[in-house]
Amino acid sequence: MFTSGDNNKELFLGIDGGGSKCKAVVMNENNEILGTGISGPGNPLHGFEQATNSITESAKLALKAAGLENIKLHELYAGVGLAGVNLPAQREQMQAWQHPFKQMFLAHDLLIALLGAHHSHDGAVIISGTGSCGFSCVDEQEVLIGGHGFPQGDKGSGAWFGLQATKQVLLSLDGIVEPSLMNNVLLTKLACVTATDIVEAISGKKATFYAQLANLVFDAAEQGDKVALAIVVEGAEYINSIARALLIKKPSRISMLGGLTPRLKPWLDKELQQQLSEPLSSPEVGSVLFARAELAKQEEKQHQSA
Amino acid sequence: MFTSGDNNKELFLGIDGGGSKCKAVVMNENNEILGTGISGPGNPLHGFEQATNSITESAKLALKAAGLENIKLHELYAGVGLAGVNLPAQREQMQAWQHPFKQMFLAHDLLIALLGAHHSHDGAVIISGTGSCGFSCVDEQEVLIGGHGFPQGDKGSGAWFGLQATKQVLLSLDGIVEPSLMNNVLLTKLACVTATDIVEAISGKKATFYAQLANLVFDAAEQGDKVALAIVVEGAEYINSIARALLIKKPSRISMLGGLTPRLKPWLDKELQQQLSEPLSSPEVGSVLFARAELAKQEEKQHQSA
Repeated sequence: MFTSGDNNKELFLGIDGGGSKCKAVVMNENNEILGTGISGPGNPLHGFEQATNSITESAKLALKAAGLENIKLHELYAGVGLAGVNLPAQREQMQAWQHPFKQMFLAHDLLIALLGAHHSHDGAVIISGTGSCGFSCVDEQEVLIGGHGFPQGDKGSGAWFGLQATKQVLLSLDGIVEPSLMNNVLLTKLACVTATDIVEAISGKKATFYAQLANLVFDAAEQGDKVALAIVVEGAEYINSIARALLIKKPSRISMLGGLTPRLKPWLDKELQQQLSEPLSSPEVGSVLFARAELAKQEEKQHQSA
Repeated sequence: MFTSGDNNKELFLGIDGGGSKCKAVVMNENNEILGTGISGPGNPLHGFEQATNSITESAKLALKAAGLENIKLHELYAGVGLAGVNLPAQREQMQAWQHPFKQMFLAHDLLIALLGAHHSHDGAVIISGTGSCGFSCVDEQEVLIGGHGFPQGDKGSGAWFGLQATKQVLLSLDGIVEPSLMNNVLLTKLACVTATDIVEAISGKKATFYAQLANLVFDAAEQGDKVALAIVVEGAEYINSIARALLIKKPSRISMLGGLTPRLKPWLDKELQQQLSEPLSSPEVGSVLFARAELAKQEEKQHQSA
C-alpha cells in the first residue's frame, strides 16, 4: 500500500469531467488502477465552481476507494480532461484555478478519450453521451466534428434524443403529429398530464435533464414506434456522418464511447459497426496517460536545461 | 388634456409583455390612443423582476409620450397581457406582485391578442414572434396550439428560425451538410470565423437572441438558397398546421400577428393567406379592452350587491 512516505512511488489522478458527471481514477506508476470515484457535473461550460468542486470531490472519492485516505491531493499529479477547454475563455479560466494538486495537466476531453481508447495519440473516437462529437488525430493532424453544445448542436446525443422526444410528444398533444408510444412514458416520467404540465416541468432545463429522457426513444423504437424510429434513424445518421468524416483520414483504430453507446451503436451503419474497436481504457485513464507523458516531457526539458 | 383632477375621466393602460419587449398603450374612456411605450422583455417566464420592471417602465414611457407625466401609475386601470400566465405558478407570482396601478387585470397574452385583433372574444389568432402559437375562442370554447417555449417548441417562430440557421451553419462548417448563403451572413453578424467561435458566441443564449437571427433565413430563402428554403418550408408548414387546427372550429375571423408575420406570411398556404384578416388593433389595445370589460363586470357586481 502507498503511504505519504513512499516518495519514489508516484501516484497519478485521472479526471474526465463531463456534462453529467465527473469521473476520477487513481493509478500507480505501473498504470494499475487503485481506485475510482464519480461526482457531479464536471464541465466548466456549465459552471466553473460546480466543475472544480466535482473534480476535487471525485478525486477524494477515488483515493477513498483505493484505501488511500492518508494521501493528500497535493501529492498527486493530475491529468484533467474537460469538455469545453478547447474554448479559449474556458481554458484560461481553468488554468487560473488554484487547484489542490501537486501539478495539473489540462487536456481537452476528446484528447483524453483518444488516449484512453487507443493508448496512443493516433486514432479516432466518436462520443455520444450527454453531448456528441467525433475526434481524430492521424499523423498529428487533428479533426474535430460536432461537439457544438445544446441545443444548437450535439445531434445524436442523449440530450438531442431527449429533446426530440419532448418535441414530438408536445406536437402530438396538440394533434399536429400522431401520438406515439413515447407519450405515456414521458408523461408518466415527468408526472404530467397536459402539454402545459410538460412545459412547466421542462422550462429552462439543460442538456443533462434531456439526456435522461433518451432511453425512452430507444425503448419505443425497439417496439416499432414510427415516431421514435424516425428520431433514432436521424440521430444515427448524424453519427454515421461523423464516422465517415473521421474515416477519410484513415485512423488506425476508431472507437465509440459515451453513455449512449450501448443504445445507439446497433442503429449505426452495419459496416461502421464492424469497424469500431472496443476502447482499451476509459477517458479518465487517458487523463493519467496524458499527465504521465506531459510530466516526462517536462522532466526531459529540465534535464536538457540542467 | 387629462390632469390628475379629471376624476370622472378614466385612463386605461394596456400592456403586452412578450419575450423580447414589453409594449404599453394609454387610452382614454373613448378608446382613443393617447400614447405608447416600449421597454425590455416582459415575459415573467424569463424572470419576474425583469418582467415587472419592464411593465412599469413601458407604462411610464406611454404616459410620457401622451404628455401625461403628471398622471401617476396609481391613477391607471391596467390591463396586463402576459405570456406564461396560463401556467399556474407564473399566474400566482404575477397576481402577488405589489403593482403600482389603481387596479390590475391580468390576462393571458393570447386572449389580449384575440381581443385586439377582432375587438371580440370570438375569433382566432396565429402568433409568430420570438415564440409561436395559435389560439381561438369560438362559442366560449378555447383552443390553444403550441406556445410550448424554446427550444422544445415554438416551431416556426423567430427563435426557431434563428436556431435552425445556427444548426445548419455549424453542421456545414464540419462538412456534414452543404454550406449555404447563411454561412457568411451568420459568421459576420456574430463576428466569428470558426465553428468554435460560434459556439462561444451563442453559449447559453436564449430565445430572444436566436429570434434576432431569423431574418437571415428569409433573406437567404428569397435568394433561392436550398438550405434556407428547407427551413422556411418546414417552419411555414407548422404554422399552416396551427391554422388548420384552429379553422376546424370555424372562427368568424382569423388573423396572424407577431414580429415575424411580414416575413413568414408570404410562405404560408395561399388559401390560408386569403383567409387571414388584418388585426383591428394591437394586443396592448386588447389589454385595454380586457381591463374595461373586467371593470364593467366588477361594477355590475357591486351594483347588484348594493
